[in-house]
Amino acid sequence: MSLLVVGSVAFDSIETPFGARREVVGGAATYFALAASYFSDVGVVGAVGEDFGPEHMSVLQRRNIDLSGLERLEGPTFRWSGRYSYDLNSRETLDTQLGVFEGFHPRIPEKYREPEFLFLGNIDPDLQHAVLSQVKRPRLVGCDTMNFWIEGKPEALKRTLSLVDVLVINDSEARELAKEPNLVKAAARIRGMGPKTLIVKRGEFGAAAFGATSPFAVPALLLDSVQDPTGAGDSFAGGMMGYLGANASSTIGDGLMRRAIAMGSVMASFTVQSFGVEGLLDLTPGQIEQRYAELKALSHLEAD
Amino acid sequence: MSLLVVGSVAFDSIETPFGARREVVGGAATYFALAASYFSDVGVVGAVGEDFGPEHMSVLQRRNIDLSGLERLEGPTFRWSGRYSYDLNSRETLDTQLGVFEGFHPRIPEKYREPEFLFLGNIDPDLQHAVLSQVKRPRLVGCDTMNFWIEGKPEALKRTLSLVDVLVINDSEARELAKEPNLVKAAARIRGMGPKTLIVKRGEFGAAAFGATSPFAVPALLLDSVQDPTGAGDSFAGGMMGYLGANASSTIGDGLMRRAIAMGSVMASFTVQSFGVEGLLDLTPGQIEQRYAELKALSHLEAD
Repeated sequence: MSLLVVGSVAFDSIETPFGARREVVGGAATYFALAASYFSDVGVVGAVGEDFGPEHMSVLQRRNIDLSGLERLEGPTFRWSGRYSYDLNSRETLDTQLGVFEGFHPRIPEKYREPEFLFLGNIDPDLQHAVLSQVKRPRLVGCDTMNFWIEGKPEALKRTLSLVDVLVINDSEARELAKEPNLVKAAARIRGMGPKTLIVKRGEFGAAAFGATSPFAVPALLLDSVQDPTGAGDSFAGGMMGYLGANASSTIGDGLMRRAIAMGSVMASFTVQSFGVEGLLDLTPGQIEQRYAELKALSHLEAD
Repeated sequence: MSLLVVGSVAFDSIETPFGARREVVGGAATYFALAASYFSDVGVVGAVGEDFGPEHMSVLQRRNIDLSGLERLEGPTFRWSGRYSYDLNSRETLDTQLGVFEGFHPRIPEKYREPEFLFLGNIDPDLQHAVLSQVKRPRLVGCDTMNFWIEGKPEALKRTLSLVDVLVINDSEARELAKEPNLVKAAARIRGMGPKTLIVKRGEFGAAAFGATSPFAVPALLLDSVQDPTGAGDSFAGGMMGYLGANASSTIGDGLMRRAIAMGSVMASFTVQSFGVEGLLDLTPGQIEQRYAELKALSHLEAD
């Protein structure tokens, strides 16, 4: 397995000013895996309930995502519902039902134990650590987290971070994790905790990356229609990690990392143009290449 | 005169988490002219009061800014005071005293009547129009405005905008002016009002430009110390227009416009690193070139 992701598979109910969907297949690992599937072989480790039927599995199977690490447990699947503001820049969580995710303890199937690339979705840092302890050290470990764990489990999170190569979080999370309002200083502090690279997600403004060489800022594509931002950050991480997986023969240098981050921005752009995962189901290589070219043109700064 | 700016010259009182200044020379035209002075000959049209002494004039004169269009009127100089939030992303205006600016009616001195480049700072759109009617059509007219005029004088603003080439406003202003939350659609609508180019200022995230060719997004530099954002947008506009003025022999094509916008971002970065205009007073060409190179490296997306 070239790329393994551990995280939530869920039913989402979403309201935006442009429409609504009830109980559609979502969850961070779903968005991540779908975005990554255009570049790499992907396996998912997670848990769903008895209500997660073949029609739901097929959303992931259609993209040839390996689901042998997706456990089916007794009880209901994790459910999330939320509503977005007029300009889509803020959202309110209406309800969260952990369901089978409450007692989830990741077990890595035998065939997954040597992933080249591993992404630890936003779950309890103790569980992230349990995953790391079950696999042979991957070539690159990516990780997401959130304020809930930064505040609630700081020591466990630090233990996990010490084993992570690339941390992908948003700007308020970076500031809180580092206890530092200045992003450049926050990045230096976080890189001192373990991750060689910090990628800061900035929503409609793209992303910024801090690594060993000079920092990198990529814009988000300027889209004339945005329907639903759900899963944009997870699609970003999936596009980025999937692209790294597809270029695994190269050294992971500054140039490759920049292209991977740009590909993350590209995949997030497809996600937000439709509801739920709809925008990630039927893309062609040509559509992805074209949008990558648009992103490159968007940030291009050279002579006439 | 290659570049003329019309706008406010003021005394600012500023509080940020990093310090405070009382009654220092500020105002949009001041920041604009100082930033532009590193590239072009600049003249300022505005008004100050009897309390604006030689020591205040010298702030602008040290950078060889022509002040023959700066009228001295009876009464006090325009005063603004404000306080910034912990992360500098929002500010509260504590007090505004228009002073001599209340009765200000711009009169363009004879020697300024054929500016190659003209920037209409954020003042009453009727006054912006009065300036345009006093000069021979410049090669390029830039313009700023704000929600106060968008809401209060929409018809006068539209008359001015029909004569403007480049409009420089922030994202909430663009959305309000176009009555459209999507920025791409808002830009198309605003370009239909006159400006061939809309530049959207995005604070710590840089700027986006919409013109005849593909859009352009430039990040803001990632700085490890930001002291005071006052005047960042005006310095951006000054750097951009000054750079265009310095390259007036070239056609103003997409490549030149992108470099000018990037230079705007560079000049804004110097402003925010110090209080008030302090960061714009003593720059060397080498410092500006180096920061431009840093900005280019920040957004560079190419092969290894």
